[in-house]
Amino acid sequence: MVSGGSAWPDSVLAVMGHPDDAELWAGGALALHAEHGARVAIVVASHGPVRDAEAAAGAAVLGAEIHSVPELQSEVLAGILRSLRPEVLITHSLTDTHPDHHRTGRTVLEALPDPVIETGRPRRVYGCETYNGLTLDGPTSPGTIIDVSSTFAKKRRALSVHNSQPIEDHFGPMAETLARLWGARIGVAYAEQFTPIPVLGRLPSISHL
Amino acid sequence: MVSGGSAWPDSVLAVMGHPDDAELWAGGALALHAEHGARVAIVVASHGPVRDAEAAAGAAVLGAEIHSVPELQSEVLAGILRSLRPEVLITHSLTDTHPDHHRTGRTVLEALPDPVIETGRPRRVYGCETYNGLTLDGPTSPGTIIDVSSTFAKKRRALSVHNSQPIEDHFGPMAETLARLWGARIGVAYAEQFTPIPVLGRLPSISHL
Amino acid sequence: MVSGGSAWPDSVLAVMGHPDDAELWAGGALALHAEHGARVAIVVASHGPVRDAEAAAGAAVLGAEIHSVPELQSEVLAGILRSLRPEVLITHSLTDTHPDHHRTGRTVLEALPDPVIETGRPRRVYGCETYNGLTLDGPTSPGTIIDVSSTFAKKRRALSVHNSQPIEDHFGPMAETLARLWGARIGVAYAEQFTPIPVLGRLPSISHL
Amino acid sequence: MVSGGSAWPDSVLAVMGHPDDAELWAGGALALHAEHGARVAIVVASHGPVRDAEAAAGAAVLGAEIHSVPELQSEVLAGILRSLRPEVLITHSLTDTHPDHHRTGRTVLEALPDPVIETGRPRRVYGCETYNGLTLDGPTSPGTIIDVSSTFAKKRRALSVHNSQPIEDHFGPMAETLARLWGARIGVAYAEQFTPIPVLGRLPSISHL
Amino acid sequence: MVSGGSAWPDSVLAVMGHPDDAELWAGGALALHAEHGARVAIVVASHGPVRDAEAAAGAAVLGAEIHSVPELQSEVLAGILRSLRPEVLITHSLTDTHPDHHRTGRTVLEALPDPVIETGRPRRVYGCETYNGLTLDGPTSPGTIIDVSSTFAKKRRALSVHNSQPIEDHFGPMAETLARLWGARIGVAYAEQFTPIPVLGRLPSISHL
Amino acid sequence: MVSGGSAWPDSVLAVMGHPDDAELWAGGALALHAEHGARVAIVVASHGPVRDAEAAAGAAVLGAEIHSVPELQSEVLAGILRSLRPEVLITHSLTDTHPDHHRTGRTVLEALPDPVIETGRPRRVYGCETYNGLTLDGPTSPGTIIDVSSTFAKKRRALSVHNSQPIEDHFGPMAETLARLWGARIGVAYAEQFTPIPVLGRLPSISHL
Repeated sequence: MVSGGSAWPDSVLAVMGHPDDAELWAGGALALHAEHGARVAIVVASHGPVRDAEAAAGAAVLGAEIHSVPELQSEVLAGILRSLRPEVLITHSLTDTHPDHHRTGRTVLEALPDPVIETGRPRRVYGCETYNGLTLDGPTSPGTIIDVSSTFAKKRRALSVHNSQPIEDHFGPMAETLARLWGARIGVAYAEQFTPIPVLGRLPSISHL
Repeated sequence: MVSGGSAWPDSVLAVMGHPDDAELWAGGALALHAEHGARVAIVVASHGPVRDAEAAAGAAVLGAEIHSVPELQSEVLAGILRSLRPEVLITHSLTDTHPDHHRTGRTVLEALPDPVIETGRPRRVYGCETYNGLTLDGPTSPGTIIDVSSTFAKKRRALSVHNSQPIEDHFGPMAETLARLWGARIGVAYAEQFTPIPVLGRLPSISHL
Repeated sequence: MVSGGSAWPDSVLAVMGHPDDAELWAGGALALHAEHGARVAIVVASHGPVRDAEAAAGAAVLGAEIHSVPELQSEVLAGILRSLRPEVLITHSLTDTHPDHHRTGRTVLEALPDPVIETGRPRRVYGCETYNGLTLDGPTSPGTIIDVSSTFAKKRRALSVHNSQPIEDHFGPMAETLARLWGARIGVAYAEQFTPIPVLGRLPSISHL
Repeated sequence: MVSGGSAWPDSVLAVMGHPDDAELWAGGALALHAEHGARVAIVVASHGPVRDAEAAAGAAVLGAEIHSVPELQSEVLAGILRSLRPEVLITHSLTDTHPDHHRTGRTVLEALPDPVIETGRPRRVYGCETYNGLTLDGPTSPGTIIDVSSTFAKKRRALSVHNSQPIEDHFGPMAETLARLWGARIGVAYAEQFTPIPVLGRLPSISHL
Repeated sequence: MVSGGSAWPDSVLAVMGHPDDAELWAGGALALHAEHGARVAIVVASHGPVRDAEAAAGAAVLGAEIHSVPELQSEVLAGILRSLRPEVLITHSLTDTHPDHHRTGRTVLEALPDPVIETGRPRRVYGCETYNGLTLDGPTSPGTIIDVSSTFAKKRRALSVHNSQPIEDHFGPMAETLARLWGARIGVAYAEQFTPIPVLGRLPSISHL
Repeated sequence: MVSGGSAWPDSVLAVMGHPDDAELWAGGALALHAEHGARVAIVVASHGPVRDAEAAAGAAVLGAEIHSVPELQSEVLAGILRSLRPEVLITHSLTDTHPDHHRTGRTVLEALPDPVIETGRPRRVYGCETYNGLTLDGPTSPGTIIDVSSTFAKKRRALSVHNSQPIEDHFGPMAETLARLWGARIGVAYAEQFTPIPVLGRLPSISHL
């Protein structure tokens, strides 16, 4: 497994439950990886023309391509994994309090083994943050914290295209508070948190302390 | 706080309870960082001429300097921290089952705040592995896993100079099993595990997923 | 044990490690309880005339009396507990990362049994928040969350009198982020978090769901 | 979110897996809330005429209305939530060892988001105790402990109407032991335990320490 | 419940997701119990003629009978439990990272209550180890550790009949490392780890310390 | 390490903080081991003639010898360990809420390494229950549960000799409730709980599932 600390991954795939989840929970990291040359893709279930258009617009701001699927099923997802062969995969935490998030994470887990055995990818899998940082097991623990100070404005812009959603009075402030908290925890302005998920007994490593 | 994923640290300090602890729990990582240009130092309480000489010989194999102190006290340690200004600090887990290890970790925690506020260093602090990977809170959790395949032979050589200790029939096999386990968990031959410890609310970050 | 949900406590005592800790970690709740008629007291070790004066000024803003002691020792503290007989006691978490905080919490634990057996007080004991919400065991867990929206301005004023400390660029923003996070978690502007600590097998209760 | 510590909730809904679960795990609290003016309702899947009649009789003792549904499905439950708009919702723990309990808790989680967004209710959600206080994650943790000394006799009477079940030699003694344990933990004769579950990032708060 | 420390169980049933799982995660313990007179059975979903034949051969080496089922369903499994009435049941951890394992464990949990109420069996239920000892909740915790030094060679032989699988370069070394780790943790050459799972509030006991 | 499931230990040593702690937390297990031929000893700090006499009387009921020491110090304790060479050691949990208990457990931990390396004993170390089953980390977890139904009456008699203590209205009922709870968890009338503590990386094992 290539160390998480050496080279930037060539590709990152985010599989999310709702059209604004990629922006909300991982937008800073996705934009950062796109700026460093990674092919960034987002898979999300179609939520009708309005929200699908918002998802496409948000992805464009992040520098990501978007794959809208009628329904998130493990077979569909396994096919996408075989095709895209992402080095890094991001999805919702398996203890996320939102049932759509939990179900998405579970579907990703279902889809993983065969593509991993066949293609060796994804090499690293992460769960992302959730509502006010509260999972069913308590507050999100530090795992992998990424400085997104340089892309936080882009994240906020990507979020703001979701006009059908309560961004200004709800999700925007939540994203701001969580990013400030994780930022404070690593001594920068803004950060995002990810939790490594073992895949067939493998976890990410780091090149140095 | 400089991200853990960007550049190799310029200096690493290990504060350990016994003369062979640096080799046993962090020898692969210390040698690796020394090979990448970091100034590596080990602080350990003097255990008499025989074991002190073994400690010096082991440190030499790892490429580290050794600082033998009469007793590990927080004031002494704070002085060393102010003088060496290590970017990275390694010590025993605060839930280590061995009382000497626990006490060492606690002393390090006592010594940290003032030097950190004054010098900004250490920037990152880690607890290391322990006997059969069992702390008072259960098995050591993944935190930061480092591939030490390239320096594991050096670690074993450094361990083997501790002639007064039961290396061949006890500590050597333990180091081998633990390094294989953590290695398997990141898909390499040998690895070492470290657990980030927050310092004044700060944790290590990583540059990318 | 009087239920935490019925009547406001008649007295609250905060035992803290540094002169600005009461404001920083519990200032909103202390001011709130003072406004509701509780006698609020703060015990802190003397840190010299400048900081002691700041502590006195901060306590005055919160509506609290302050007890400066030469050193926080369990015998001294037991005497204060027997004298003040606080219904509620607040101190640092026993897994706080700061050694002074940890030591203070441990001293409180040492002092508790005899006064509790003799006087029946304190009835409820809580640990408070810490640097960026990170203890040695991970992020602070929800336990008891208190809405301090109505006293947060007072908390900020009390903090700001600590001129010798880096309030504006460090502790103030940290307090703001943590209070926003806990506030969001209960749907208000600002909140503070406390963790019940069992005393001789007793925990706080609540009158209704 | 109205604080858990201010006024008694106007309505409480318990969604349970079996006809005697409401009595067994939450009977004291349900009766207590009914006595304080809350509308208390129980939703349970029909288990045939004998057990359904026992459920109705038990609910009557507690002062609760009962809603028997052919099958606990999230759509059905969402409809009931929109209709009853309970301020408080109680269900089984998501780590309950009994598969029917786990499934019920999961169904409740599935049903929650839309009614919460639409109606703002339930405002607080709790998981309840389980067999001998053992979940899949270990013993039930303190969360919210309620003094039910005044309604424990009513709980035992409500339990005893379930003639088809092994109440006298099994569930009755279990309820007695668990209520004594939680009672001892808050210094009263009998208590029941509940665990707050975050809903869209929101948890219950308390008005004072 | 008969204490786990008194007499050897008369029967052990392992319900596993894949044809080589019984050997991989519990082979040493199954062979040991068979040698001590227990009837040992393995239930696994059919994976086609090649793997089914390997499963039969592996079971034969362990001294176990094998029950191949078209699909692992809770009703099917409940029937097998009623028929075999195993004293001990082993299955995958409910937090196993492999979706097939997780699903198998969940199916076992679904099947348990009725047979347990009707027949009093199984008396004890355990989850087994998993890939590199990593569950979704972190490293496998010590629970029940069994010395399998005397049957480890048999386990390796049973594993080696699974010619269609990457035994020599992957599963064999993993089994070796995990067995050495758990062995070191109890001071023997090889051991296996099991985690007690509560069944209707019951856990295994032990006759003496 | 001899498996915990094979033969009864030849000797058990309990090191406790107060004169009635052995009876309260481990009295059933101590009496049981004494009845099965183990030499059972209790070490406790002297608490004056009245309580020391009660301790002696209580130990006599349990079938144990008592060693009263002026103060529990690690050097003193190490000497006792070298002299008695107990196969099993019991002490307070390291996260016990009572400061005397915590300190006792910590002293035991300090005393252990040298005697263990020199004599190979104690082979197994356990923490015991505490006030209402509540440690600083939450409720006591299942670890090792022992059926003490046959010796519970003896435990209650041993407790009742502590006339200076509030046995009838406080400690007796607490012991009853905890023993019923743990008993219910293994399907017997009364049980006691113990938590294995790793010693130099070693934990107890069990001979069979």
